[in-house]
Amino acid sequence: MKHVEPGLIVAPLTPFTAGLDVDEAALRREIDYVVSDCRATMVVAAGVETQEYTYLSLEQRKALIRHTIECVDDRVPVMVGISHPSFKTAIELAHFAESLGAAAVQLLAPLRPFAGPPTQADLVAYFEAVRRESSLPITLYLNPGPGADASIADTIALAKLPGVALIKESSRDLARVSRLIVEIDRAGHARYFTTMQMLLATLELGGSGATMPPPACEIARHIIDAFLAKDHERAATLQLQFALFPSKWMHRGLAPVMKAAMKLIGVPVGDPYPPYASLSDDEIKAMAAVLRTTVLAERFSVTAAA
Amino acid sequence: MKHVEPGLIVAPLTPFTAGLDVDEAALRREIDYVVSDCRATMVVAAGVETQEYTYLSLEQRKALIRHTIECVDDRVPVMVGISHPSFKTAIELAHFAESLGAAAVQLLAPLRPFAGPPTQADLVAYFEAVRRESSLPITLYLNPGPGADASIADTIALAKLPGVALIKESSRDLARVSRLIVEIDRAGHARYFTTMQMLLATLELGGSGATMPPPACEIARHIIDAFLAKDHERAATLQLQFALFPSKWMHRGLAPVMKAAMKLIGVPVGDPYPPYASLSDDEIKAMAAVLRTTVLAERFSVTAAA
Amino acid sequence: MKHVEPGLIVAPLTPFTAGLDVDEAALRREIDYVVSDCRATMVVAAGVETQEYTYLSLEQRKALIRHTIECVDDRVPVMVGISHPSFKTAIELAHFAESLGAAAVQLLAPLRPFAGPPTQADLVAYFEAVRRESSLPITLYLNPGPGADASIADTIALAKLPGVALIKESSRDLARVSRLIVEIDRAGHARYFTTMQMLLATLELGGSGATMPPPACEIARHIIDAFLAKDHERAATLQLQFALFPSKWMHRGLAPVMKAAMKLIGVPVGDPYPPYASLSDDEIKAMAAVLRTTVLAERFSVTAAA
Amino acid sequence: MKHVEPGLIVAPLTPFTAGLDVDEAALRREIDYVVSDCRATMVVAAGVETQEYTYLSLEQRKALIRHTIECVDDRVPVMVGISHPSFKTAIELAHFAESLGAAAVQLLAPLRPFAGPPTQADLVAYFEAVRRESSLPITLYLNPGPGADASIADTIALAKLPGVALIKESSRDLARVSRLIVEIDRAGHARYFTTMQMLLATLELGGSGATMPPPACEIARHIIDAFLAKDHERAATLQLQFALFPSKWMHRGLAPVMKAAMKLIGVPVGDPYPPYASLSDDEIKAMAAVLRTTVLAERFSVTAAA
Repeated sequence: MKHVEPGLIVAPLTPFTAGLDVDEAALRREIDYVVSDCRATMVVAAGVETQEYTYLSLEQRKALIRHTIECVDDRVPVMVGISHPSFKTAIELAHFAESLGAAAVQLLAPLRPFAGPPTQADLVAYFEAVRRESSLPITLYLNPGPGADASIADTIALAKLPGVALIKESSRDLARVSRLIVEIDRAGHARYFTTMQMLLATLELGGSGATMPPPACEIARHIIDAFLAKDHERAATLQLQFALFPSKWMHRGLAPVMKAAMKLIGVPVGDPYPPYASLSDDEIKAMAAVLRTTVLAERFSVTAAA
Repeated sequence: MKHVEPGLIVAPLTPFTAGLDVDEAALRREIDYVVSDCRATMVVAAGVETQEYTYLSLEQRKALIRHTIECVDDRVPVMVGISHPSFKTAIELAHFAESLGAAAVQLLAPLRPFAGPPTQADLVAYFEAVRRESSLPITLYLNPGPGADASIADTIALAKLPGVALIKESSRDLARVSRLIVEIDRAGHARYFTTMQMLLATLELGGSGATMPPPACEIARHIIDAFLAKDHERAATLQLQFALFPSKWMHRGLAPVMKAAMKLIGVPVGDPYPPYASLSDDEIKAMAAVLRTTVLAERFSVTAAA
Repeated sequence: MKHVEPGLIVAPLTPFTAGLDVDEAALRREIDYVVSDCRATMVVAAGVETQEYTYLSLEQRKALIRHTIECVDDRVPVMVGISHPSFKTAIELAHFAESLGAAAVQLLAPLRPFAGPPTQADLVAYFEAVRRESSLPITLYLNPGPGADASIADTIALAKLPGVALIKESSRDLARVSRLIVEIDRAGHARYFTTMQMLLATLELGGSGATMPPPACEIARHIIDAFLAKDHERAATLQLQFALFPSKWMHRGLAPVMKAAMKLIGVPVGDPYPPYASLSDDEIKAMAAVLRTTVLAERFSVTAAA
Repeated sequence: MKHVEPGLIVAPLTPFTAGLDVDEAALRREIDYVVSDCRATMVVAAGVETQEYTYLSLEQRKALIRHTIECVDDRVPVMVGISHPSFKTAIELAHFAESLGAAAVQLLAPLRPFAGPPTQADLVAYFEAVRRESSLPITLYLNPGPGADASIADTIALAKLPGVALIKESSRDLARVSRLIVEIDRAGHARYFTTMQMLLATLELGGSGATMPPPACEIARHIIDAFLAKDHERAATLQLQFALFPSKWMHRGLAPVMKAAMKLIGVPVGDPYPPYASLSDDEIKAMAAVLRTTVLAERFSVTAAA
């Protein structure tokens, strides 16, 4: 067992105004919730697609990064998303992150823009190009779909690059993750982070934690606390709170689902960026019924749906 | 928490002679190992593809079923694989199983033989047709590739059929399995069984156990014992023994990998059915090095490789 | 341009009685239609999954092969499907085919029964094992799903094996097929056959023809005749008759769709093997409206739907 | 048959300087080749991923669009790529295109940034949002991977939107394309364009043409001319020139392959944007040998490789 405390890396959802600008006041409230109530160990700025950063111009994205860092206000470290098809833009964002005092950067293993998957050499060359120009530790971010579907061998090769300090894995494949925790995290190459659904299994196998948006991170905080207290039955019971939520609504997309949950717990962060729609009233009622069986229940405002 | 003891359902590998007949003596030794040493709670006869039953004629398959039941000799219940594209053959095998005193049957959710996935209605009609003619409890066996890739909704619909008592899930997708354990096992529709890589996570979430071949089942037995003893740290440490084994050799196929491991622990069950090849000497040495770090170490014969 | 006439290889649908035995009288009528009216250049016996042969016992399958050969009665060559996971059963079927005077055998590139795709070496070893024991020319049958998804490199390696004389390709990927026609058919390794949707493109590129069930083969016969008459505009117009049919109903499966079409043209071959259902009345009406715009129109019985 | 001449829509490759800026001189030479020698019927500016536009900042992308339009200099219409995850940026680019006199815009059916595919309603809402703000005809661009994998039903629904005038289909699935040509192009909803490998089949089925980069477009010009001259045998022979090229090198990516071919024919457009590499000398020699068998042979400079 490592002596590092499990990590709870939180990616705040991006609240938009009616005019589709970033709603800075809502973001500030959300970050307070994430840092104070959920005790995130690190906050991600504009790093994962659920943060809807792909809709932003480069200037808006930088403003979001700056505002996130200001709101966190040194309470915990901030990791800045620098993913971009061009390594030059990724480097520009890395320098920007450094200038603002960020603790790390997160970089998506990219798709090949034209057909076919990138080779391991392509992926290594891309990460090397960024690493050479940046002094901040890099999180290798794996998210097939928007990014490349890195094989086990590719992932290990990238994890061994100097400068790559963390892995953010999006798959829920426990066979893959078990092996990579051993070959990467326990082997000392990089710390391995997974998803909310994988959190307890990850911790038990010796992984380093998970990355997720709010309010999932509040449930995760309870799981981590129970795990640290060696209360394994409670940890398992809490992990079950991720069995139906968010799975039952995931066909709507993770950002719409988590934004609906935030509204229910009284920390509203607005609606999804179009064309994606908010959940329907019926969907929200059904979600409320599920969330009332979780640790989020006590946050429900008296006026909340259902 | 349920009061049913976790299940360890074991599917013995099928040993072949040089002439490609079933090697009955080797099967008998293997079943003794599975039942006595690994304390399987149930044995599967000709049920999963790793048992290489698809190579057998119907007569050979029946002989394998009969011999498996004889070797188990009522020490534990036997579940008989009845999977076949034709529901009529599946029913014939179910009747055969019943006549031999089998406790249950296992039936693969079938592929559509012509292009395209079966619909939920197709799957339900197939299971209903078999169920109507058989009094034995049915295990719904999910194995995309040889079988259909049943969605969450399909799986729940099938689990709710009267007669379907167990689910054997082959995916290692913990998001899917978490949800299905809640919606199927904890909801009382059927008991949910997964794979070796998912065993501890399954038990913690309230699932019913796992199905696997030997010698993985010996590691699994230790995990289950530690779980029942509430020694969660030991259970987690043991679960890690499935991180590299069998993953590192899975490109060779599960049957060749497990047959190589059986040779190493001194319970040989022969070579894979052609055209699939045994592992190379170098692969076997590397596997031996990994297995020597597991609970299987003490079985290594003094003459074993590496 | 080759001087060999384009091939129209036809795989008769398997008619079942109410008791799910092969309906021999219906098969005889169907084969007369296929041979006399559609001028098939070769008939396939129990070779493709659309023929629903996977539902049959080995004895029923042999009876179907024998009956097909008898019905064809030497009017055209017959190719016998010998696909089976076990190379030993495939060889047994090849010997059976030889004893009945078959002209060739067709063998599916098999799935690996346990997880993961077969390697090129696995596929080559399987085909070599069969080829060594059979003197009949072999058709390499590619059908991902029931069979392996052979890469371009795998396909070329298999095509170069002595004994492999034809390829039956099921994909509709024209980039793949264009390349393989050049590297396999025009290179002299094997004749390349595709599907109804690819027929004209295949002929124009120098491929050898297509394989399909009735009544698609009647449309295909007209396409081939127009192509041979160098009436390219007519050939293209006829090829368009495969744009909506069968695509619009393919979610129901190819066998149910073609059986519905056979009923419409007055050569009934019964219903699909359960659990697959016949098309609904509305679907049949819609299909009739489409088929009335094709060369099949004149076969419509006066009492046909719509 | 329609009376509209087949379309040859060409997407010039983006030449980069050593400093990774757009090489305007090289682009000008390339566009002259495309317009004068290949007789493109329309030029695409920054529209497809093979044009490597995803590496550019918004300002660089606008500069590329402006420069492309200037180089074309009204010789043929220009279609401007406006694809962006945010409909607002897409609209901004549409307005920019309009201000420069573009004839049309091209818009990729977008991925959902977070997991799962967009629904038909999502896709329609996105296209409607752009269409409402733009008066230019829209090309629906389908490219699964960077964009969504639109089903047949989705594609038809989008094609029926007012404002959607063309479809650019990237699949090589002839069953899909045959059906969509009938249900979209021949039905009058939008003109259907495919790829180089599908060109002749597309024209014969009544589709409208194809989109591709140079120098593939020079081969395509010959195919179209032969098709218009009703010289079908020559058209088929020319179509075969796309059987090995670019397929044999496609694992390297379409942009690297086409850039290598441009160097061979004496219209150099530089190297791929990093991390993607140029083809090796051996690969270039092998490609030269293939291209010397095509209509591109006469462009080979005397000093060219091989």
